[in-house]
Amino acid sequence: MIDFYYNTGPNPMKVALLLEELGVAYRPVPVDMLRGEQFDAGFARINPNNKLPAIVDEDGTAVFDSNAILLHLADKHRRFVPVGVAERGTMLSWLMFVASGVGPYSGQAVHFQHFAPEPKDYAVTRYLFEARRHFEILDRRLADSQWMLGDDYSIVDMAVWGWGRVMARPLGDDAPARFPNVARLVATIDARPAAARVATLRDTHAFSQQFDQAAQQTLFRHLAPRAD
Amino acid sequence: MIDFYYNTGPNPMKVALLLEELGVAYRPVPVDMLRGEQFDAGFARINPNNKLPAIVDEDGTAVFDSNAILLHLADKHRRFVPVGVAERGTMLSWLMFVASGVGPYSGQAVHFQHFAPEPKDYAVTRYLFEARRHFEILDRRLADSQWMLGDDYSIVDMAVWGWGRVMARPLGDDAPARFPNVARLVATIDARPAAARVATLRDTHAFSQQFDQAAQQTLFRHLAPRAD
Repeated sequence: MIDFYYNTGPNPMKVALLLEELGVAYRPVPVDMLRGEQFDAGFARINPNNKLPAIVDEDGTAVFDSNAILLHLADKHRRFVPVGVAERGTMLSWLMFVASGVGPYSGQAVHFQHFAPEPKDYAVTRYLFEARRHFEILDRRLADSQWMLGDDYSIVDMAVWGWGRVMARPLGDDAPARFPNVARLVATIDARPAAARVATLRDTHAFSQQFDQAAQQTLFRHLAPRAD
Repeated sequence: MIDFYYNTGPNPMKVALLLEELGVAYRPVPVDMLRGEQFDAGFARINPNNKLPAIVDEDGTAVFDSNAILLHLADKHRRFVPVGVAERGTMLSWLMFVASGVGPYSGQAVHFQHFAPEPKDYAVTRYLFEARRHFEILDRRLADSQWMLGDDYSIVDMAVWGWGRVMARPLGDDAPARFPNVARLVATIDARPAAARVATLRDTHAFSQQFDQAAQQTLFRHLAPRAD
């Protein structure tokens, strides 16, 4: 049994999708980040970065970071990843494009548009530009083929789906119209039974919605009082 | 022969380190980002993200993103990566911690401290905090073992070395004192013959130092005039 530490954010949800696609047994463990549960000592031993998602695999191995978990589980089950060295080079390039680009820039675009205080014009402009630029590259890639790696559905598509399904939040309400091929990928994945089961999981646990000052300082720790 | 597209930034340099550690034949191809050479059509076909580093492997496969290249080459040569599923889960966790955390937050910390215009207090505070938080996690990890994965030197150490060797830039001049275990890792790697050969490579090509307005708009494209 895999222990799956999650909340309903983009990164945990893409791991939930792979778990459901693989059909492996897992136990969902909600971690309420607004209440600071990610700092509990038990969880910090699993993920020293105090973020979600993380898993403890059947053999007791802790794996953290959503894209690390995708690749770890896919490789272990030899599904949703190519096996040839060249094809894996392409897969790794796009997976890392999501991990080091799409994710971080989308996250910063959300932070500055929806949470950061004024003045923030420069940062909003920077991150909206960069997040959109990354989605343009995804959209061009998906104009040429059904899936990110061509004919086969893979963990790269699941990685894109994570932010793709909520892309209006970093990119604006016109995002599905601006990036129609990404929108098509999201709709195709949403129609799969595995995604329907993820939607059920999303509604299973009531996470805190109390976004007060204490929650803000818990989530954005640079806002919290600090000794140094 | 591998074609290695590079400049002297943290990300290309860690790939240069692996190429030298592997002892494989490669042809270094300088790409002058201040002159906009990353937008040349030929290079954009290799890396649609218009960033460095990228490689074209011996069989013609293009691989982009520094951490993707590290994993691709290490897996291909079966060196500097573990082979067991559990050990790979740990390796992937830390490699992605660098790819999606250390790298992006260090990059933003550099951007806001050294390049962005005022007002920027909030963003500087945020990114300096997050970059230091990531290095604290690395430093704690390296307090317990010589290398990031324990007893064996791996691509995760090379990934840490990339930003570690220039950590004063994102983190401040006191960074080596604040993060002594990361500093020890950097010094240990710097003493290796492969790192000495990377230092030679760094001095081979004269990249543009002309950081004028045109170069700024080339490098930070959210500053450039744009149609939409």
